Amino acid sequence: MSTLSRHLGAEALGTALLLAIVIGSGIMAERLSGGNVAVALLANTAATVGGLLVLIEVFGPVSGAHFNPVVSAVMAWRGDLPVARLLPCVLAQLAGAVAGAWLAHAMFELPLLQWSTKVRAGNGQWLAEVVATAGLLLVILRAGPGKAPSLVAAYIGAAYWFTASTSFANPAAAFGRMWSDTFAGIAPGSVPGFVAAQCAGAVLGVVLDRLLGQPAPAPLSGSPPP
Amino acid sequence: MSTLSRHLGAEALGTALLLAIVIGSGIMAERLSGGNVAVALLANTAATVGGLLVLIEVFGPVSGAHFNPVVSAVMAWRGDLPVARLLPCVLAQLAGAVAGAWLAHAMFELPLLQWSTKVRAGNGQWLAEVVATAGLLLVILRAGPGKAPSLVAAYIGAAYWFTASTSFANPAAAFGRMWSDTFAGIAPGSVPGFVAAQCAGAVLGVVLDRLLGQPAPAPLSGSPPP
Amino acid sequence: MSTLSRHLGAEALGTALLLAIVIGSGIMAERLSGGNVAVALLANTAATVGGLLVLIEVFGPVSGAHFNPVVSAVMAWRGDLPVARLLPCVLAQLAGAVAGAWLAHAMFELPLLQWSTKVRAGNGQWLAEVVATAGLLLVILRAGPGKAPSLVAAYIGAAYWFTASTSFANPAAAFGRMWSDTFAGIAPGSVPGFVAAQCAGAVLGVVLDRLLGQPAPAPLSGSPPP
Amino acid sequence: MSTLSRHLGAEALGTALLLAIVIGSGIMAERLSGGNVAVALLANTAATVGGLLVLIEVFGPVSGAHFNPVVSAVMAWRGDLPVARLLPCVLAQLAGAVAGAWLAHAMFELPLLQWSTKVRAGNGQWLAEVVATAGLLLVILRAGPGKAPSLVAAYIGAAYWFTASTSFANPAAAFGRMWSDTFAGIAPGSVPGFVAAQCAGAVLGVVLDRLLGQPAPAPLSGSPPP
Repeated sequence: MSTLSRHLGAEALGTALLLAIVIGSGIMAERLSGGNVAVALLANTAATVGGLLVLIEVFGPVSGAHFNPVVSAVMAWRGDLPVARLLPCVLAQLAGAVAGAWLAHAMFELPLLQWSTKVRAGNGQWLAEVVATAGLLLVILRAGPGKAPSLVAAYIGAAYWFTASTSFANPAAAFGRMWSDTFAGIAPGSVPGFVAAQCAGAVLGVVLDRLLGQPAPAPLSGSPPP
Repeated sequence: MSTLSRHLGAEALGTALLLAIVIGSGIMAERLSGGNVAVALLANTAATVGGLLVLIEVFGPVSGAHFNPVVSAVMAWRGDLPVARLLPCVLAQLAGAVAGAWLAHAMFELPLLQWSTKVRAGNGQWLAEVVATAGLLLVILRAGPGKAPSLVAAYIGAAYWFTASTSFANPAAAFGRMWSDTFAGIAPGSVPGFVAAQCAGAVLGVVLDRLLGQPAPAPLSGSPPP
Repeated sequence: MSTLSRHLGAEALGTALLLAIVIGSGIMAERLSGGNVAVALLANTAATVGGLLVLIEVFGPVSGAHFNPVVSAVMAWRGDLPVARLLPCVLAQLAGAVAGAWLAHAMFELPLLQWSTKVRAGNGQWLAEVVATAGLLLVILRAGPGKAPSLVAAYIGAAYWFTASTSFANPAAAFGRMWSDTFAGIAPGSVPGFVAAQCAGAVLGVVLDRLLGQPAPAPLSGSPPP
Repeated sequence: MSTLSRHLGAEALGTALLLAIVIGSGIMAERLSGGNVAVALLANTAATVGGLLVLIEVFGPVSGAHFNPVVSAVMAWRGDLPVARLLPCVLAQLAGAVAGAWLAHAMFELPLLQWSTKVRAGNGQWLAEVVATAGLLLVILRAGPGKAPSLVAAYIGAAYWFTASTSFANPAAAFGRMWSDTFAGIAPGSVPGFVAAQCAGAVLGVVLDRLLGQPAPAPLSGSPPP
């Protein structure tokens, strides 16, 4: 295959697997937890953290493992992704996200085609998505060499809990979860608000990254006093 | 001992310990969880992830730490395992798997010889095993140097939750769990369907690996724009 | 921005995010756990461990990622932080801590301004803070190159459970949590006792570090016998 | 201080902190879990894994971070520890273990001096201690450079669940837990059986290590077929 089709294929397949992990583990967790939502979200978190680590490590060398339109947009703005490739890349992510939702439904023998009825809205949730996405961009832009996979996974795991929105932080994730009336779903009417907040958060993350400047050596380390 | 007997011994012992971990932690989790299946599966997952990481690190330098007939078959097909060693290797894994189930039973003072009565079947479960095994092969074939142990462990941890079958992804695991009428068991009549799905998943994983091509440098990193 | 404003900005922003993580995940955990405090603290722990790892990795190269007045004080004493910068650094941490509490409240749509009513006092809790802070300093002062982020995060995760105080180990954390009448809060009247214990613990940590001396090569490793 | 006193001090302090972590997190977990033993053991496991990782990393360069008489005995047998230092080292570990139990009791405001009434005995538990200790020695003797801390921690985390005894695997731990009538305790009358099983397990671990031979390059990796 050409480099382009490999790139788009990796983004589509990776985003599909990410959504299958998020939605599938949500279904399993809700079924098994007997109504204990905290236990269900713990399991959903653990599966997402492990899966995200693996997906970024595996697909990173092929496509950068964005799986996220705002990440791809920032990379295009920085010159790390050809601008002409941004739109096809985002379309691949969105298509993959829906396919991932359907794959989860097929595995759990649910109707493939469904729409979430879970309304997620309000100032708190929107602020949470701004914070979650700004933090995600800060982590991606400032992770040391080779550390992005583990740091992004750890960050999303924390953000599932400390943000009021359980940290979607990804327009493709919001789009894909819209097609699933399960634990991880989001009602279609709530998606535009989330995506707008995520775009604002991405801009905030880039601004904060610039304000913090280039790294200077001041590590939290144990060198002896002079 | 000869290299051959060390190889087969490592595969047998490693697979035995893997099954003892999976089945033993399932027994402990079911006993302690008071019917909360989500908590039991969380504990089963945590023990499996930690144990798998350790087993692959410890036995990898001796035998490659396959513990899995479809992994060994793919390695033989790739030329990474002598074809003549494939059958003895698989037999060592299967023997180890049964021994591991019996070791778990002995530790928990259960009858050594037993058969699972837990039926695991249906299109959803079979699709889940295809997905789980394809993902496992993708991870193994594409993990960066030294990263296979942690990525395989993290992947299986996620797959316990996002696949409807709790991700056996391993014919030796299915065979060994058949001998245990406990949390992690699978009825003998359900094993052939799981193994067939795992074989199909392995082929799919190899095909996807080929389609994605050799890695090209496009990391998710924070280099400055030009 | 100047190096100084970047340093102070990083300490303020990092401490704000740390408190938002600790308090926000506590609110989410308490809401979802239905009164199961152990599950709530498990979720609070997981979010703190993941978030702390990320924050230290991201802000470490800019400011050292102290987020903690006693850590900054020890670094100033060792000569790793200019003494003239200690006071502004501590003020940035305290301001960030309050801002982080307010950010968590805003995300969860709670009144921004509130005071904790959770009394945390007594010899056991104070001893626990001495132990927790001494251990934190030992970890920071003796972590190998590049290991401080993961070891500090793992340590705090363990200390949430093995110390009777859930290991604040940080005067800025105590100050910030004072402003939140939620799961992670501490009544204002309990803060001075905690801070005093933390200062004593920091001194103890430094003394223990000195007594243990420079590292000598005696690793837990598997070299063959002579 | 001399090298000897640093060595013994590190073993005493490290073992004390290990026992404080195991016993303290057990007390906290039991108090908060409202009778859900699986959740309590999950928290106890998480604290032990994180704490053990940190302790081995921090004390390893000073004393080897054995914290375990059978590990020290095997190291002495291999020539990695002077034989004359074995007895003082074990005494330091035992003294530290009791001090750690008392430290946990002090933090949780329990009577310092107490004896466990929790009987842990029977063929299943003893077999479990043999297995747990053999596995621990295998991990220590075969861990790659720099990997012992994380692998030992991950192994003990798994073994808390897959062994019927919750994997003491350490005579000093058994001795120290004897002094605590809490979640992690063991009745004094049960200690000799556990210690005997642990000694047998250590021998088994050393034998298995020898049988597996020196590592040969056969990694679980993705090199292309010839």
